[in-house]
Amino acid sequence: MKLQDLGEAALIARIERAARGGQGPGVALGIGDDAAVLRLRAGEECVVSSDVRVEDVHFRWRTDSPRGVGRTALAAALSDLAAMGARPLGFTWSLAAPASLALARFDGLLRGLLFEARRHACPLVGGNLSRARETSLSLTVLGAARRGQALRREARAGDRVFVTGRLGGSALARARAERRGRAGGGARLPVPEPRLRAGLALARIAAVRGCVDVSDGLEVDLGHLLGPGLHCPLDPARLPTPRGFAAACRREGLDPLETALRGGEDYELLFAVAPRGPGAAALSRRLAVAVTELGRVRRGAPAPAPARGGWQHFGGAGPRR
Amino acid sequence: MKLQDLGEAALIARIERAARGGQGPGVALGIGDDAAVLRLRAGEECVVSSDVRVEDVHFRWRTDSPRGVGRTALAAALSDLAAMGARPLGFTWSLAAPASLALARFDGLLRGLLFEARRHACPLVGGNLSRARETSLSLTVLGAARRGQALRREARAGDRVFVTGRLGGSALARARAERRGRAGGGARLPVPEPRLRAGLALARIAAVRGCVDVSDGLEVDLGHLLGPGLHCPLDPARLPTPRGFAAACRREGLDPLETALRGGEDYELLFAVAPRGPGAAALSRRLAVAVTELGRVRRGAPAPAPARGGWQHFGGAGPRR
Repeated sequence: MKLQDLGEAALIARIERAARGGQGPGVALGIGDDAAVLRLRAGEECVVSSDVRVEDVHFRWRTDSPRGVGRTALAAALSDLAAMGARPLGFTWSLAAPASLALARFDGLLRGLLFEARRHACPLVGGNLSRARETSLSLTVLGAARRGQALRREARAGDRVFVTGRLGGSALARARAERRGRAGGGARLPVPEPRLRAGLALARIAAVRGCVDVSDGLEVDLGHLLGPGLHCPLDPARLPTPRGFAAACRREGLDPLETALRGGEDYELLFAVAPRGPGAAALSRRLAVAVTELGRVRRGAPAPAPARGGWQHFGGAGPRR
Repeated sequence: MKLQDLGEAALIARIERAARGGQGPGVALGIGDDAAVLRLRAGEECVVSSDVRVEDVHFRWRTDSPRGVGRTALAAALSDLAAMGARPLGFTWSLAAPASLALARFDGLLRGLLFEARRHACPLVGGNLSRARETSLSLTVLGAARRGQALRREARAGDRVFVTGRLGGSALARARAERRGRAGGGARLPVPEPRLRAGLALARIAAVRGCVDVSDGLEVDLGHLLGPGLHCPLDPARLPTPRGFAAACRREGLDPLETALRGGEDYELLFAVAPRGPGAAALSRRLAVAVTELGRVRRGAPAPAPARGGWQHFGGAGPRR
């Protein structure tokens, strides 16, 4: 059974049926009209971020489960709301795909998206279907933040920089999956956990200056948080990595430090706290997640990196998922 | 010069530079962070709609100007806000494209999007870049409507149905452009005009029951407006078409009635008004655009159409732009 065997109207009906019931109190008008209508509370602003996942760039049908692709797509998009300290309101999903796409893959994507949607109270409220030569998912997540409280990209000299959770695990898992995939084996990638609760907690702490999520890699996203004219020297021994990380990296032929610094797709929160703000232990309690202090923000440019880090589309670091 | 000669970071900087200055008072935080933050007024709800334009499905590089593709993409998306009676707040633009895409095409798309953005006070506030094998633009438009005032798809028996402007002109222009394109000539398509002011005016008229925009074709979108169990008999002589339409259609080998009923992409507003509501003349004054009464809503299914109408992706009516 392929998309062309159903046609657009039946596919839309299929999405509407599956999405119904997941509509929360923030949805005044859900899927099925010219547009959706979302309700904010008094004193809230609307937070919006868009993300795209393209076949053979962000996922591979040959090795990735459609459900995992859908889950990861929404989780990664929600990570941007987490980084703003916003609560999710809803999301739109546009799918461009060949008419020959297996309906089972379409259903898997949809199930994966709706699974994460329910987990994070972020209902599917709209979208678009189009035929195309390759499959791509385009997601826009909408959230709400209290007026003036959204966490921007900001830091000042003297601020301390912290990160939630652990770094490098996603890159390690990708390398492992690629090797197993080449060997013909199954390779299920872990779905990232958007740090929505931690982001909401951060937005309520006055001393928190700014926040980003670690999607491109710690080194690159640290540059995004600090902006030009500032840097934060990192102590490799302080980087929080998963248990047994160094040995596991070496087994995959990866350099552990490089992987932790530049692996990307960790979807942890990286944030700057004013000098008199709380430390790692207090933050960890408030955020209900492990928090590690990485260092202190200083004036001036960082020391030149030995190699170019992070992922760039259209030429940059070599091919990567 | 191609996208790969600049790389993602430089392309994003290029977008940010071009988009700056276009940020209005509704944008608390524009392009360049993990997400954008949009401000609503007290008592407003957030309206959101997503749309995708795919190479060789919605546009053709060979015949369409990149600027026109960009303009049309945003205008078509804004038409969905118009159909809700919402005022635009901002939009996100995600571009998936080959690394070999000419920078001139990228710049053309961007210029076209930003031209329409300024015309309709709908600033570019975010998006995403990804490489892909084919080019696709994914747009999400955000707007604001007064609480409970957004125009849904709704009609009741006895309501009168009206449409703004004229129908069929877009399909006629496409047929003409295709013929000229085949003959090797230039073929500039008209950019649709989203009926934003008319939509806002409609949302303020209590007797207006529901509204959609005519994107798939009058016949199909009338079905969307009315829903199951209702129909509205149409008098072909009453359909508003452009001057000289019938003769021009015949020159292109098109049936005029078929083209007016099923051409699609007219982006006019089609709406239902309660029996005691204003007539076409009064509506036309309030909406500041020509308004034509099409007929009255009746109970029951419509008479079966002689041919299947409107555009369906993934199998449906034959290939169309």
